Amino acid sequence: HHEKHTEHGAVVRDAIIGFADGLTVPFALTAGLSSIGSSKLVIIGGLAELFAGSISMGLGAYLAALTEKKHYEVEEERERREVEEMPEAEEEEIYEIFQPYGVKRETVRGVVEELKEDKESWVRFMMQFELNLVKPKVSRLYISALVMGLSYLLGGLIPMIPYFAIPNVTKALFVSIGITVVMLLSFGYVKAIVTGTTRKAAVWSAFQTLAVGVLAAAASYGIVRGIDKA
Amino acid sequence: HHEKHTEHGAVVRDAIIGFADGLTVPFALTAGLSSIGSSKLVIIGGLAELFAGSISMGLGAYLAALTEKKHYEVEEERERREVEEMPEAEEEEIYEIFQPYGVKRETVRGVVEELKEDKESWVRFMMQFELNLVKPKVSRLYISALVMGLSYLLGGLIPMIPYFAIPNVTKALFVSIGITVVMLLSFGYVKAIVTGTTRKAAVWSAFQTLAVGVLAAAASYGIVRGIDKA
Repeated sequence: HHEKHTEHGAVVRDAIIGFADGLTVPFALTAGLSSIGSSKLVIIGGLAELFAGSISMGLGAYLAALTEKKHYEVEEERERREVEEMPEAEEEEIYEIFQPYGVKRETVRGVVEELKEDKESWVRFMMQFELNLVKPKVSRLYISALVMGLSYLLGGLIPMIPYFAIPNVTKALFVSIGITVVMLLSFGYVKAIVTGTTRKAAVWSAFQTLAVGVLAAAASYGIVRGIDKA
Repeated sequence: HHEKHTEHGAVVRDAIIGFADGLTVPFALTAGLSSIGSSKLVIIGGLAELFAGSISMGLGAYLAALTEKKHYEVEEERERREVEEMPEAEEEEIYEIFQPYGVKRETVRGVVEELKEDKESWVRFMMQFELNLVKPKVSRLYISALVMGLSYLLGGLIPMIPYFAIPNVTKALFVSIGITVVMLLSFGYVKAIVTGTTRKAAVWSAFQTLAVGVLAAAASYGIVRGIDKA
C-alpha cells in the first residue's frame, strides 16, 4: 500500500504554469493590436511584452523563492534560540500542536521528552509541525525560475508565429486564434492532470483556461478598438 | 512569550504582489512603445496589456486556488477511506511521521491510540502532518483574486498617467521612469517587510525589484528599437 500523492516533477509543473500564462496575455495583446491593421506593430508590441514578461516572471520567481529561503533561515534561527533560551515555552508549544486532535498531555509528554534529547531534531520538528515550513532547496530555485521564464516565452511566441508568416494581419489573427484556442484547451487540461485531479476536473480546467484567454483577448481587443476610434 | 510570525493580512500580501507585478511589465511595455513616438500607441498598447494582464492574473489566481481546494477535498476523501479500510497502514504512517525526529515507537503508540478514538481528528491529523495540506478558505479565494487583479491594474496604471497628461512622448517617458523607479523601490521594500524580513533584506529586495523592472524595460525598449529599424 502506498499513497498516491501529487509528486510529479516540480519542473514539469513550473513549465506548465509558465506556458499557460504565456499563452494568455501575449496572445490577448497581439489580438488587440492586430485590429489596428499593422503586422509590424503586432510583432513589435507582442515581442516587447513577451520578453519583458518572461524576464519579470523568471526573475520574479527566483527572487520570491530566495525570499522564502531567507524567511525559512530566519525562522529556523529563531527556533534554535528559543529552544536554548526558553525551552519550557517551546515544550508548551508541542502540547499545543497536538491539542486540537484530542491527544492528552500525559500521552504527548513522552514525545516531548524524546524530542528534547536532540536539539536539532527538536528544531526541525517545530519548523515542520508548528510553523509548517519546508526547507527550500537552492538548486531548484534557479531551475524553477529558468523553466518558468523560458516556458512563458515559448507559450507567448507560438500564437505570434502567424504574424511572422502571414502578411495579411486579419488572416494571421484568425490562425493565431485557432492555434491559441487549441493550446489553451490542451494546456488547461494538462495543467490540471499534473496536479492530480480527475479527468472530469481536467476537462473543466481546460475550458476555464480557455475562458480566461478569451476574456483577456476580448478586453484587449475592445480597448484597442475603443481608443482607436476615439 | 509569543512567537512573532509572518501573519500579516493575506489580503495585504496579495495587494503588494499584484501591485509590484503591475509596476513591471506594463511599465516595460509602455517604455518600449514610447520609442516609436506616438502617445496614442503607448496608451493603446499599455491599456490593452494592462486589462488583459489583470484579468489573467485575477482569474488565474482564482482558478488556481479553486484547484487547490478541490485537490484538498480529494486527498481528504482518500484519507477518510484509508482510515476506514486500511487502519493498520495509516497507523504505520503515523509512526513514519515521527521517526525522522528520533521519537521511539513505544512513545508514539500512546499518541496513535488516542488519535484512533476519533476518526475525524485522525483524518485531520494525517492531512496536516503527513500530507502537509492546509484547508483553503473559500471566501479568501474570491477576495484574493479580486485584490490581486485590481492591484495589478493600479500598479500598471500609475506609470502610464504621464502619457495621458503630457503630450510630448519623450517627456512623458522620463516622468514615467521617475515615478516607476520610486514605486519599484518602495514596493520592493514593503513587499519584503510584510513577509517578515529584516530591514537590510528589505533594502536588498527594493533594489532587486528595481533591477527586474529595469531589465524588463531595457529588453522591451531594445526590441522595439531593434525591430523598428529593421
